[in-house]
Amino acid sequence: MSNIRVFGKVSERFIEELKNSSAAFILTIGTTDTSLIPGITVAGASPELTHYTPPADAEFLKLGKCLVIPFPPVTPDGKPTPALVSRACLLLLDIPSIIVDAGSRVKPLIPHVDLVGEPGKDIRTGTALSENGARRILENSKMFGKEIADTFDIIIIGESIPAGTTTAMAIMIALGYDAWGKVSSASPSNPVELKTNVVKEGLRRASLPRTDDPLVAVSRVGDPVHLAVAGIAAGALEEGSRVLLAGGTQMCACVAILKHLGLNLDPEMIEVGTTRWIIEDKTADMVGLLSQIWPDYALLVADYSMSNSRHPGLRAYDEGFVKEGVGMGGLLVTALVRGFSPDEILRKVEEEYERMIR
Amino acid sequence: MSNIRVFGKVSERFIEELKNSSAAFILTIGTTDTSLIPGITVAGASPELTHYTPPADAEFLKLGKCLVIPFPPVTPDGKPTPALVSRACLLLLDIPSIIVDAGSRVKPLIPHVDLVGEPGKDIRTGTALSENGARRILENSKMFGKEIADTFDIIIIGESIPAGTTTAMAIMIALGYDAWGKVSSASPSNPVELKTNVVKEGLRRASLPRTDDPLVAVSRVGDPVHLAVAGIAAGALEEGSRVLLAGGTQMCACVAILKHLGLNLDPEMIEVGTTRWIIEDKTADMVGLLSQIWPDYALLVADYSMSNSRHPGLRAYDEGFVKEGVGMGGLLVTALVRGFSPDEILRKVEEEYERMIR
Repeated sequence: MSNIRVFGKVSERFIEELKNSSAAFILTIGTTDTSLIPGITVAGASPELTHYTPPADAEFLKLGKCLVIPFPPVTPDGKPTPALVSRACLLLLDIPSIIVDAGSRVKPLIPHVDLVGEPGKDIRTGTALSENGARRILENSKMFGKEIADTFDIIIIGESIPAGTTTAMAIMIALGYDAWGKVSSASPSNPVELKTNVVKEGLRRASLPRTDDPLVAVSRVGDPVHLAVAGIAAGALEEGSRVLLAGGTQMCACVAILKHLGLNLDPEMIEVGTTRWIIEDKTADMVGLLSQIWPDYALLVADYSMSNSRHPGLRAYDEGFVKEGVGMGGLLVTALVRGFSPDEILRKVEEEYERMIR
Repeated sequence: MSNIRVFGKVSERFIEELKNSSAAFILTIGTTDTSLIPGITVAGASPELTHYTPPADAEFLKLGKCLVIPFPPVTPDGKPTPALVSRACLLLLDIPSIIVDAGSRVKPLIPHVDLVGEPGKDIRTGTALSENGARRILENSKMFGKEIADTFDIIIIGESIPAGTTTAMAIMIALGYDAWGKVSSASPSNPVELKTNVVKEGLRRASLPRTDDPLVAVSRVGDPVHLAVAGIAAGALEEGSRVLLAGGTQMCACVAILKHLGLNLDPEMIEVGTTRWIIEDKTADMVGLLSQIWPDYALLVADYSMSNSRHPGLRAYDEGFVKEGVGMGGLLVTALVRGFSPDEILRKVEEEYERMIR
């Protein structure tokens, strides 16, 4: 395949199905109060605004404009949300997209599936989710995953949760993996030390050296979104649909949850799709995380760049800003697999960007 | 067709599509505080419990058990919810069902689509919904209807809203139709005078002799559900899918809203499906309402009875209890059109009933 780099045990059958079968994109949104820690995330113009990023991403994805805030989500220095690229891919692909709220402080003002979850608390408390809340998120996300798999053969699952790389790191470490300093960031200067300290504090307060139970890991130091992504994937796989986990190092935490739920992770049925910006991030190690958690891992990387864009806001992606989110990598992979060229995609992204800044 | 009675301009093409095309059932739930008026509804064991009926109906439909209350919804004298019959039909039909919350005081604890609406206030206030709330329900229900129509060719839409016949009557009268004493009831003794007085009070407080604007009618004396059912239907029709409005006299209010939204109601694309218990209700006049609002109306009636059931709780349906709700009539019509015999359906209902009372 041109424009796709493959890592691990990528399956030809999976690619064939991704190309030809009926697909739907699920954007799983939620919040963790961990995002309010100054400096931990750039997924929002200020710490307080990070709670508006997931619903605003959802609205932007579906409508091309936001309702909960008057402008699309940006980093503090104005770099645009990856929802822009995801939206462009969805417009080209012409596949359905569904917003799923796993637990958000601010709800999107458009129709969305409510998993009756709860927002995550700051993981430094060691009690990120209530036990009941975590159990309900898992049950409802599996139920939703099964239902959606009745209708679609390929379920592409993305996420939007500011500070999600920090909670992902905590989940993986709680489940016994060495994820210290291996998760990526939407900023070119990954605040690795701050993340590490936050995760350490959370694990200490949770009295968690490690656990094999994903519900314990997530309810102590996790968040609603990684659990829901894993639950939707588990439900869809159970019904025989294929799953593309669309995201960066956070998806490694979803894989870890799936593994500890006891699922058989067959690369013919489930793979991960991300961007080159994640793979090229020297402050992270997605392949290392995947191979540690899932020896049979399969990773598809979209060889798509915006360094030739006429817009500095888009060229910033190639300077280490943003990198992933809102399913961008998996949707780029899907668009490339389905025959759209990087140039076609860039033109669509620029078109949407120009509409957005007008 | 055996076991289906037809009224008005029923289209053969519509029946053919109902039989063979991909269908989904949408249960639209919501509440109006009008249901708290003692004696106005039997859709709940007590006025306060009526607020639990819609989420409990949704849960029963999907799970065969309830989560928000420890038992399935019943009338004050113990007659079981029509969700029982709807669930049996869905099990036979094996089609997807989706719960849509248009505005409920109590949320179902299972995955559901949130239209970001609001619960209805007592219509005697003359301000049942906020203007913004009504506008959002209409916009979001249309958006959802369009999206679901991308995937399914037939959209069957039911409702669960206690006191819905009263708000339906108010909506139709506000839009200029003579609905006085023409709506049905889940009770064998329809509280016609009480309903009439409540509607009169609402219209007076709303300073509404009549209006042509469905958003004005609904926001003054309506509720979230009838508006959302109409919006979902409007969106689905706009995308070229067919719609079966599954319900009794309440669906006449949905037809009135659709008409006043300016939709062309072609019986080849939209019809109404209900039970014989509604048509045989001498305290109501569904055919009269339909022909008044929609001269080209098309109505399919399921010739299905439970008078031979071994369970008194089910035989009660033939004694004038319950009659409609949770899409029962439209789902019975669909099951009959798709070749299930009344006996097969009754056996499935009894099976579910026996499981339920154990």
